[in-house]
Amino acid sequence: MTSPTVKLNSGYDMPLVGFGLWKVTENPQQTVYEAIKAGYRLFDGAFDYGNEKQCGEGIKRAISEGLVKREELFIVSKLWNTFHEDHRVEPICRQQLEWWGIDYFDLYLIHFPVALKYVDIKDSYPSGWNDLDGKVSTVNAPIQETWKAMEQLVDKGLAKSIGVSNFQGSLILDLLRYARIRPATLQIEHHPYLVQKDLIWLAKSEGIQVTAYSSFGPQSFVELEWKKATDCPRLFDHDVVKTAAEKVKKTPAQVLLRWATQRGIAVIPKSNNPQRLKENMDVTGWNLDESDMEAISALDKGLRFNDPLSYLGTLAIFA
Amino acid sequence: MTSPTVKLNSGYDMPLVGFGLWKVTENPQQTVYEAIKAGYRLFDGAFDYGNEKQCGEGIKRAISEGLVKREELFIVSKLWNTFHEDHRVEPICRQQLEWWGIDYFDLYLIHFPVALKYVDIKDSYPSGWNDLDGKVSTVNAPIQETWKAMEQLVDKGLAKSIGVSNFQGSLILDLLRYARIRPATLQIEHHPYLVQKDLIWLAKSEGIQVTAYSSFGPQSFVELEWKKATDCPRLFDHDVVKTAAEKVKKTPAQVLLRWATQRGIAVIPKSNNPQRLKENMDVTGWNLDESDMEAISALDKGLRFNDPLSYLGTLAIFA
Repeated sequence: MTSPTVKLNSGYDMPLVGFGLWKVTENPQQTVYEAIKAGYRLFDGAFDYGNEKQCGEGIKRAISEGLVKREELFIVSKLWNTFHEDHRVEPICRQQLEWWGIDYFDLYLIHFPVALKYVDIKDSYPSGWNDLDGKVSTVNAPIQETWKAMEQLVDKGLAKSIGVSNFQGSLILDLLRYARIRPATLQIEHHPYLVQKDLIWLAKSEGIQVTAYSSFGPQSFVELEWKKATDCPRLFDHDVVKTAAEKVKKTPAQVLLRWATQRGIAVIPKSNNPQRLKENMDVTGWNLDESDMEAISALDKGLRFNDPLSYLGTLAIFA
Repeated sequence: MTSPTVKLNSGYDMPLVGFGLWKVTENPQQTVYEAIKAGYRLFDGAFDYGNEKQCGEGIKRAISEGLVKREELFIVSKLWNTFHEDHRVEPICRQQLEWWGIDYFDLYLIHFPVALKYVDIKDSYPSGWNDLDGKVSTVNAPIQETWKAMEQLVDKGLAKSIGVSNFQGSLILDLLRYARIRPATLQIEHHPYLVQKDLIWLAKSEGIQVTAYSSFGPQSFVELEWKKATDCPRLFDHDVVKTAAEKVKKTPAQVLLRWATQRGIAVIPKSNNPQRLKENMDVTGWNLDESDMEAISALDKGLRFNDPLSYLGTLAIFA
């Protein structure tokens, strides 16, 4: 089983269902390799996940064994906050490509609309939000400067498509005023507790494909033992989700993913469990009732987990 | 009675309580003149309100009668969306100054982070959101371009301070990366149904003074017969507000204004009623209990009235 694709505004096809590499720390090589075997073609990575070299090794093995060709894969990575100054974009992108063992990304995103002080990978990798003194230090690189450097990655063939992540509406509208190459995708936190109807409307109306992360809501953050997440009813156990799941004879996880894909939103779940790996891929080709779609959307409570303001105490990018 | 002032990051003092000129259509000359007599010194105008000439006449009369001097007044106006291209900023600012009959604004704001197609005042004034064909037509003027032109107004002495209105967090953070002159104020919709705690935190932490508009919540929009407002319980009648008002022997309107000023947020109510004009000025120098402050803040429901997406069906600047 593989995923259907959607056509991006860049002209390229992107799988609607992919595999997210955040927090894939135990044997990423094997995880990626098994995911390819299970039919996954899109891998959503990032500098910040700290596992690009190992993920690349999994891909290399699958290609060398003839399971898949490079051009059948859709490799996504992201520019970390510490590389927003224009002269830093291409060098780090090339470094990330080298780690992956490939010569282009299918999609390269600005990870956050935040420009932080440069940290050399020799001193800290992945460096996260803090500089070497343990402080969150911003630098004056406007998004326009960073976006122009992103466009040059396309010009040079290092990225087929470029996009953004964790951007609000007004910042996207501003970017569209100066973009020579429009963002192909917008990756955002999106689950029934954080629906962001207006933002999704904006992206669709501007021809920007939305990719949802943290589709299971609190689940990703419970693992990190965040109080906001542990205090919150799990979506897997929610009656509305369970009822919908019983009706279609799927798991709650599949329902949460289908709730997104049925509206044309791409998803990037991850799993180390072979059974769930298969199940997560089976989230297209069948439908939830409109009434269940709406009931799930009605769970919205504007509850955002991945907000720097809540875990850093600064950078109010979602205010 | 006059208002206490706050020191802006530009070095100038701004009254914490002012008079808002939106929807002041019946005899603005007299309204402004009476407000000056009642002690108001800050007047919050805008191109879009369509009454700058008449408001200026009210000021002229008050000055000529010796009630007040120009330097005791704090005149605020705003750049409309159709003048965001850099070469349009200074000419329209000069036009607005001419209407007011003054040679500088104390504060000049970008009204919305939206750049629309130019409409000549000879063809339509105030032109609103639609172009002459009745369409919402955007132009490619990034905020950075507009802000640079705003900074030149300060250089030329046409505005003492400059600021923004209706901006989200990430757009403010982006602006701070390229601003040579930082915004002195941020004007936003702010009332107990739309508290925007994180945005206010951001402004304060960056030294930007917040001004609240629509302090009475639905009230301003009930007059426009917006369903979202008429469907919503009025804040004047809300038990939490009424209880707090009884305790301090003030009106619900005064409580709503004090709820803002007690946290250092400037307010710009309007009234044509002489009694309320006086009452609205009496919103400093006494305190609400901390418990009442918190109870009022707890009414938050993220309910925004002034959202172009809801009345235009486009421009998702708050998504």
